Amino acid sequence: MTIDVTPTEDAEARLAALVELSRRARALADAVVLTDVPESEVTAVAAELAALTERLGALRRESPRSFELGPGGVPRNVGNAVTGSANPHALPLVVRVTPERTVRAELSFRPVHAGPPASVHGGVSAMILDHLLGEAVAAAGFPGVTGTLTLRYRRPVPYGEPLVATAEYTRSEGRKTWAEGRIALPDGTALAEASGLFVTPAGWLGRGAGDETGSKSGQAPVRER
Amino acid sequence: MTIDVTPTEDAEARLAALVELSRRARALADAVVLTDVPESEVTAVAAELAALTERLGALRRESPRSFELGPGGVPRNVGNAVTGSANPHALPLVVRVTPERTVRAELSFRPVHAGPPASVHGGVSAMILDHLLGEAVAAAGFPGVTGTLTLRYRRPVPYGEPLVATAEYTRSEGRKTWAEGRIALPDGTALAEASGLFVTPAGWLGRGAGDETGSKSGQAPVRER
Repeated sequence: MTIDVTPTEDAEARLAALVELSRRARALADAVVLTDVPESEVTAVAAELAALTERLGALRRESPRSFELGPGGVPRNVGNAVTGSANPHALPLVVRVTPERTVRAELSFRPVHAGPPASVHGGVSAMILDHLLGEAVAAAGFPGVTGTLTLRYRRPVPYGEPLVATAEYTRSEGRKTWAEGRIALPDGTALAEASGLFVTPAGWLGRGAGDETGSKSGQAPVRER
Repeated sequence: MTIDVTPTEDAEARLAALVELSRRARALADAVVLTDVPESEVTAVAAELAALTERLGALRRESPRSFELGPGGVPRNVGNAVTGSANPHALPLVVRVTPERTVRAELSFRPVHAGPPASVHGGVSAMILDHLLGEAVAAAGFPGVTGTLTLRYRRPVPYGEPLVATAEYTRSEGRKTWAEGRIALPDGTALAEASGLFVTPAGWLGRGAGDETGSKSGQAPVRER
């Protein structure tokens, strides 16, 4: 993959503005599901929203931003549906690699993620865990695409409360790699658990350290989910 | 569960306005991930968005709308994260029960659902399938909550193209029920498959036909996911 765009100060400032716009769009979505203002006000806001959408559409890309290298050559994917800071749909999930090369995300679901009363939709938990396990295999040096994923639902997942999601590599056989993870209360009580099999595409293997899309020793490549 | 609110014409008109507002909020999210307008315009739109959010927040509920009975006593869940027409986060997935009591949804993912380049995030497919399988067990008369769910990823799922998701009940043992489903191209080519075990909570059993939250002969209860 050739990365054409060298990040510049201007490009970084524009990205920061897009990240802020996405944050505002998430806040708007939260306000939509919680609003009790009268119908006339709902309709008035909808009309203004359409005008803002038209302004953003004055110059339109064909697809969201995908894999790119940020300052210092750090890979990022700001358009990703789960982690993308410039995507209003994303939680966004902020995943950190621990010194033990497991992955960890502190998160809090929002009212837009509701399924059962006062609880997060099981499908939303599945979405988060799929991503997290993929990050875990990448952090361990075995990046791959999800082959199979199994979810076990233990307890209702609340929204509006701090939670912790963690995942870790368990084993590999050839191009297959397994990982496990969970969404838990801060005290460690597991709410939803997942185990998954990831497959490293043949095309990802055998690339040298000079190839920015391959795995480098000591540096997990960005994952594209 | 007691349903206090009898739908009125006013309430239905207000809901229609909220559904339209949610549709506009989805269009805005799409515009955010695709916009290439200059930074100054991004910032200006973000400021106006904050003002609209504040207007919606002038009267604020504590939680999203959940299970309710619409006109004719038809159950609905307009705040649901996956199917809620009044929730900007929802696709929304519109699920229909076939005469054979399987479930079917025609859908098209959007750029906000992106993971790998030109493809839907595997976690988003998981989110949709979790919901659909739950609908399948409910349609078969065995409503339950997800116990385990296993996903198999076969091919990349595209966004911006018409797709079909289907699911069906497979078997039951006591309070456990199994279902299978898939997201496929219109020609039937499976892209992502799922099988799941659902458990009917003990408290849901033994309710009479007069209880609006229980299963009625010939009418699957609404599912709360």
